[in-house]
Amino acid sequence: MSSQAPERTSDTDAAATPPSRRLSRRALFGGVGAGALAVGAGAALGRSTAPEPVVADAAEAVVPFRGVHQAGIVTPAQDRMHFVTFDVTTTSRDEIVAMLTKWTAMAERLTVGAESVPAGVVGGGQYEPPGDTGEAYGLMPSNLTLTIGFGPSFFDKFGLGDRRPAALQDLPRFPGDDLDPARSGGDIAVQACADDPQVAVHAIRNLARIAFGTASVRWSQLGFGRTASTSTAQATPRNLFGFKDGTNNIKAEDAATVDEHVWVNGGESDWMTGGTYLVARRIRMKIEPWDRAVLGEQERVIGRSKATGAPLGGTAEFDTVDLGSSTIAKDAHVRLASSESLGGIKILRRGYNFTDGSDGFGHLDAGLFFVAFCSDPQTQFVPMQQALARRDALNEYISHVGSAVFACPPGVPEGTEAYWGSTLFG
Amino acid sequence: MSSQAPERTSDTDAAATPPSRRLSRRALFGGVGAGALAVGAGAALGRSTAPEPVVADAAEAVVPFRGVHQAGIVTPAQDRMHFVTFDVTTTSRDEIVAMLTKWTAMAERLTVGAESVPAGVVGGGQYEPPGDTGEAYGLMPSNLTLTIGFGPSFFDKFGLGDRRPAALQDLPRFPGDDLDPARSGGDIAVQACADDPQVAVHAIRNLARIAFGTASVRWSQLGFGRTASTSTAQATPRNLFGFKDGTNNIKAEDAATVDEHVWVNGGESDWMTGGTYLVARRIRMKIEPWDRAVLGEQERVIGRSKATGAPLGGTAEFDTVDLGSSTIAKDAHVRLASSESLGGIKILRRGYNFTDGSDGFGHLDAGLFFVAFCSDPQTQFVPMQQALARRDALNEYISHVGSAVFACPPGVPEGTEAYWGSTLFG
Repeated sequence: MSSQAPERTSDTDAAATPPSRRLSRRALFGGVGAGALAVGAGAALGRSTAPEPVVADAAEAVVPFRGVHQAGIVTPAQDRMHFVTFDVTTTSRDEIVAMLTKWTAMAERLTVGAESVPAGVVGGGQYEPPGDTGEAYGLMPSNLTLTIGFGPSFFDKFGLGDRRPAALQDLPRFPGDDLDPARSGGDIAVQACADDPQVAVHAIRNLARIAFGTASVRWSQLGFGRTASTSTAQATPRNLFGFKDGTNNIKAEDAATVDEHVWVNGGESDWMTGGTYLVARRIRMKIEPWDRAVLGEQERVIGRSKATGAPLGGTAEFDTVDLGSSTIAKDAHVRLASSESLGGIKILRRGYNFTDGSDGFGHLDAGLFFVAFCSDPQTQFVPMQQALARRDALNEYISHVGSAVFACPPGVPEGTEAYWGSTLFG
Repeated sequence: MSSQAPERTSDTDAAATPPSRRLSRRALFGGVGAGALAVGAGAALGRSTAPEPVVADAAEAVVPFRGVHQAGIVTPAQDRMHFVTFDVTTTSRDEIVAMLTKWTAMAERLTVGAESVPAGVVGGGQYEPPGDTGEAYGLMPSNLTLTIGFGPSFFDKFGLGDRRPAALQDLPRFPGDDLDPARSGGDIAVQACADDPQVAVHAIRNLARIAFGTASVRWSQLGFGRTASTSTAQATPRNLFGFKDGTNNIKAEDAATVDEHVWVNGGESDWMTGGTYLVARRIRMKIEPWDRAVLGEQERVIGRSKATGAPLGGTAEFDTVDLGSSTIAKDAHVRLASSESLGGIKILRRGYNFTDGSDGFGHLDAGLFFVAFCSDPQTQFVPMQQALARRDALNEYISHVGSAVFACPPGVPEGTEAYWGSTLFG
């Protein structure tokens, strides 16, 4: 079996010339096909702070792994997600750097649809564990992105307390929070998004596998349907309350807004330049009471038409929300969550619907796994959630049951030896 | 708002002339489009016991709801699943019949991509709860099938103990079972399969919604990737151990085998003619130890090549498994599960991979949600599982943590007033 490393070409636009996953994965049984792996290295993300996103629905589509920023943030939201957090089980800087270096190489390979290591599924021979777990063999790249973040608890474990950004602090307790510690926190988070859930699960599972001895899974969450658009090319999806969600979300095409509200620019933590912060909230939706609420109540709570998504008093989804109008209630979600009500705060939402069985009391355990990116959670997410937690009419129907925050370092630039987090450790 | 009932045409091949889900759902805001709903009534399944299945990957594809048999059994396995069981909370025959009648009408509408009731999402007006929860509005039919079954506990609740088939009994405790009662049993099961998970979740959620007061959710399970092919037109997918799973599964095209091993023909329970039995087993896979097992061990346990799926000693996936060869271990899974080792027993497998977060001990809670259909679980599934539970080398790496069995009545024939289970109650 070949153990040839991926060769990278200079400037390919991966989205325009997708490789065949079927071919690349098959090639791995006989040795890595350098041609197949050359694609995906284009790094369109590497050259501008807010690239024109490409919505490529095809299973063959590859999102460039390398760039100034990590993928999976302004990338047009894929259909499915597997999100995981880890507790590190070492205090050795060498061990964690070794793991992050291995993860980076693996993530880059997985993104183009290759197996997780060059030896592939059976490359090690009969007397070694397979190099890849195999369940994604034959599946397409499916726009897989992998995005890493470090939690507040990560830094002290490696003597890096002085490098922890001021923006990265455990979130305060918000009114109404009903947090489960087993679904909260974590030293490291990895978000896998893809259009095929098995591709996302395979990626997380292989990262967890090679973390053995260095980090172990704390909690994980599958999301089956996106509830946000992060590109003007995407239609606004519906959440499990049946409403369009994220109409006024930041869109990747709006470079100035992305630069101002999403990416870290300077500040006291140089290593985070080009990075962002990820806030995750597992929001359980009380769907049975909601389903018994009359339409007028549902629309009053949200402040939008259920059918069209138009703000109440408007006629079309993207009509301006008229906060001067009493048609939109004082405690309507759309009013309180609006940038105007929040002194200009905007965040990039990128959440997913989830359903995790039932709660043992005859109800589906379902809701929204809220994921948002912002350049400073202390001045963006925290005041927003304080306003919502106190007054949002929607609180009657939801409950925040999990919470976490992470610093997502910048991307791994093209043509470098950088690894996930190398600006922190380097 | 119109409340026009679905009109059905006589002999349309729904798979060949799919409706536009986008159009049909949009039409519902202004009244039901009879044209959109006329499609899906073709009932290709209604006219032969083992039709040629059509693998239609397009999101517009509709699987006919009506037929001699229920859909979702020999239907080419869709990509995603939401499975739910209910406990009934009434002993009134009238109430349960009313619910089953409403469910049948709703299931038929959902299958063609319509909202769950004719009034649609907002048809009831401001002072009534919406007729549909709305999260699938704008989504395509996506090959949705809904399949119902009644558990052993169902019958006595309605004075129907004498109509409970002898074939329908709680499964015995098998060696190694580690069953969680909260993930086992149930009076009624509904299996929703679709190529879009949000469509499957929406269907289950709306059935659960209108069951309020009559039945409540006992447990539910999402499956993100099929692990079985039920048609010769489908490639064999891989399970979370990375192996092709279900190579020798019954295929719908093999009419004689389906008739013999899947459908109930005569017997002491006339009402089950054209029906089948569903066995569900939540099989937790110990993927971390598996991932550390060497390739030789993995292949010895399964009895097949990990790369190709070929039986050990063979060269291609569909090569005959040579049970006379010592290359395949005495306790290999493929040997013990083979029809030849089991005196001719065959079942139709239709399971899904699942990942449900983590187990709190640093492991992913992942595995196979095994679903199988057979004409008599007592003479098919039970002896098969007894052989596997005692001797299968795979037992070192798996644990059965949930279990249930259901009698699936025949389909709802074209042009009748029948409902799900009407042969039982009628």
